[in-house]
Amino acid sequence: MLTAKIYVTLKPGVLDAQGDTVKSALETLGFRGVADVRIGKFLVIRLDGHAREQTAAQVEEMCRRLLVNPVIEDYSFELEEAGG
Amino acid sequence: MLTAKIYVTLKPGVLDAQGDTVKSALETLGFRGVADVRIGKFLVIRLDGHAREQTAAQVEEMCRRLLVNPVIEDYSFELEEAGG
Repeated sequence: MLTAKIYVTLKPGVLDAQGDTVKSALETLGFRGVADVRIGKFLVIRLDGHAREQTAAQVEEMCRRLLVNPVIEDYSFELEEAGG
Repeated sequence: MLTAKIYVTLKPGVLDAQGDTVKSALETLGFRGVADVRIGKFLVIRLDGHAREQTAAQVEEMCRRLLVNPVIEDYSFELEEAGG
């Protein structure tokens, strides 16, 4: 069993309304020095099998075909051997 | 300038409807061997200052007060020295 941890972020320059809202909320709560907040997705996918290279190719394809909008989002991922 | 990367995940056992939907979609697209999909948030916050200990305490407090729902979510974060 392998675990893919996928990080999906908005590309630099793409407006992050949710991030801006959180930044304002943090300031309202009294937090100082917050320069920027960007909010992305963190996906954890557990996959059968132990073939790292093949699984990495599969995760890459998942990102391209479903998980990521390449127009506005970047992504990266890492594979870990899972416990269960 | 420090960058906090914050990973917010649903606690084990909490139903992840979005994750289940993505799992179904991956199977519909023909991907085999997907055991589980969990979807969380990935926040990147850029903070003024270089005092790691103080900033870590501040990020911890941000998570507790605003960013994380402790009833259903877990979180972890790491601090990195930022370029700009």
